[in-house]
Amino acid sequence: MSLKPIAELGEFGLIEKIAELCEPTLAAAEGLQEGIGDDCAVYRLSESILQVATTDLLVEQVHFDLLYSPLQHLGSKALSVNVSDVAAMNAKPRYALVSIALPPSLPAEAVEQLYKGMAHAAGLYGVALAGGDTSASKSGIVISVTAVGETSPEQLALRSGARVGDMICVTGALGGSAAGLQVLMREKRIMVEHLENNEPYDKNIMANLKEYQGAIQCHLLPSARTDIIDYFHREGITPSAMIDISDGLSQDLQHICRRSGTGAHIEEGRIPLHPDARHIAEEFQHDALDYALGGGEDYQLLFTLGTEKFQNIATHPDITVIGKITPKEEGVNMSDIYGMQIDLAEHKAGFRHF
Amino acid sequence: MSLKPIAELGEFGLIEKIAELCEPTLAAAEGLQEGIGDDCAVYRLSESILQVATTDLLVEQVHFDLLYSPLQHLGSKALSVNVSDVAAMNAKPRYALVSIALPPSLPAEAVEQLYKGMAHAAGLYGVALAGGDTSASKSGIVISVTAVGETSPEQLALRSGARVGDMICVTGALGGSAAGLQVLMREKRIMVEHLENNEPYDKNIMANLKEYQGAIQCHLLPSARTDIIDYFHREGITPSAMIDISDGLSQDLQHICRRSGTGAHIEEGRIPLHPDARHIAEEFQHDALDYALGGGEDYQLLFTLGTEKFQNIATHPDITVIGKITPKEEGVNMSDIYGMQIDLAEHKAGFRHF
Repeated sequence: MSLKPIAELGEFGLIEKIAELCEPTLAAAEGLQEGIGDDCAVYRLSESILQVATTDLLVEQVHFDLLYSPLQHLGSKALSVNVSDVAAMNAKPRYALVSIALPPSLPAEAVEQLYKGMAHAAGLYGVALAGGDTSASKSGIVISVTAVGETSPEQLALRSGARVGDMICVTGALGGSAAGLQVLMREKRIMVEHLENNEPYDKNIMANLKEYQGAIQCHLLPSARTDIIDYFHREGITPSAMIDISDGLSQDLQHICRRSGTGAHIEEGRIPLHPDARHIAEEFQHDALDYALGGGEDYQLLFTLGTEKFQNIATHPDITVIGKITPKEEGVNMSDIYGMQIDLAEHKAGFRHF
Repeated sequence: MSLKPIAELGEFGLIEKIAELCEPTLAAAEGLQEGIGDDCAVYRLSESILQVATTDLLVEQVHFDLLYSPLQHLGSKALSVNVSDVAAMNAKPRYALVSIALPPSLPAEAVEQLYKGMAHAAGLYGVALAGGDTSASKSGIVISVTAVGETSPEQLALRSGARVGDMICVTGALGGSAAGLQVLMREKRIMVEHLENNEPYDKNIMANLKEYQGAIQCHLLPSARTDIIDYFHREGITPSAMIDISDGLSQDLQHICRRSGTGAHIEEGRIPLHPDARHIAEEFQHDALDYALGGGEDYQLLFTLGTEKFQNIATHPDITVIGKITPKEEGVNMSDIYGMQIDLAEHKAGFRHF
């Protein structure tokens, strides 16, 4: 590494460097099957049981803003994004550890709200909140969640298993979270302007947010798709590759292709857009597709599956086939509604600058 | 909870509240044997294998100061304090997940140093660095480590198992870390004063620190006592209760007594003091015993054991018997070198204000 700041190295450059430095330690744990590079680490507990483990850090002013994130929602989201990583391995979540750094001036009631939200989500997913750590913070809240789940060697879905010809599928609808965030940021601007001008801020203005409710909920209170994992396990479906959509459809599809050594082709017309994303995009003179491709934080599942399983998923109302895996040489492309080919790999930073 | 700030509630009050809020989720994970309240959560993997898991948060300016913490040491310590919690369950560490929030202006080289230290320690403990998360930080470095280990139902040592009559034992020597920290803080003050007065700071002055080297190393580069766990497993010793000394001997002994429903009696004259703690205490006109009782961060093991096992530990050069477990009514006491009885429970905040 050089003396250039991390900001220049970028997130993926940094992760690559860290993976390189950790690599020599991986041989130490005999049972370790996958280290850094997937949604979870994979550890072999026995012949028939695999453990998956993931951890995520949420930093105030980087990942959330208390001006528009109710603490109960924040607690729920902190757990959900980790459970979503467990689900992305086709695994069932079991327990979680939660560490939290708090400004000492924060009211105890705020902590109660946060943990209530977390405990509520834990109840929905059947996850035990089994331990953690508390610390003072010098500036803002930091939440670190580690989630642990279980699956079997037959059911495990890595990012690296996609094969040429596989269908590319997505759950739910995309773009809602990014659209909701755009609305929330506008509201924040209005609020801050009012405060700066010493004008009274009319709380009732928030009533107008009702029409954006669906999208805002996608952003503040996302759900991990453990229901899809239950469906897979019931139906005996094992995706050849899977990831949860946290960076945006474009980036996350490229993660699968990079690890699988394949290309991909998806069709714009098949991408399920969140209904609110459309009218919010119109209002902001934005392209709704951008929210889905580059927005991220939808926490839906993106997976690939052999075509022989088409009948199994065709009947599920919340799974959409959006394309297919192609040879590596063909790249990662999308044909738009006019039939034009767009190279998704050329937009590495996501679609925000598309 | 009330609207009073967390600072008023105190760390232990906060943990109690959080445990209460998380309690309803514990039934969710069938295999969960111990939730919040011990060094690790305990999860039953099979009839014969228990998993233990712990997580710790290190926050810049709260837990460490880069002015005197080399980043390699910091990386090593971040892992060691978690492995120490695993050891305190009489378990062997297996893998760890590491999350880190970094100011974007930090040079990439700094991250390399941090992970080099971590990877080096991981190598010593046989721990795989299996995954993690990276994030930007708005102020200072935050490191969150989760460590996972394994033991058996027969070998597991909780805080709650001490029985009246058991010996109270401690590994290594105590007080080195707190003594080292006192020296480092004085050096920092001198450095800051020089900078504020625009005087050149002579780096060679640090050469004087050589005579404090042992204590400083205790603070900056502590080791988890996995060697003791290996010894226990080889000899078939299972402590009736165990904890690692992170809050100071007084607090940590009280943790064992509270969870076990017992009292304890220790003798000042038997407490093994770090040799550097004595001469540093003299220089600072401090009581060396304070460092051991209230200083904390020694990461030695404090455990209880039935007297029938006395022969097994009497031969170990690094284990000292310092007292015995008594009935609850007798409280947690120490007789000093003059034979006076001191009630340790009256000094809840540790011995800094003793």
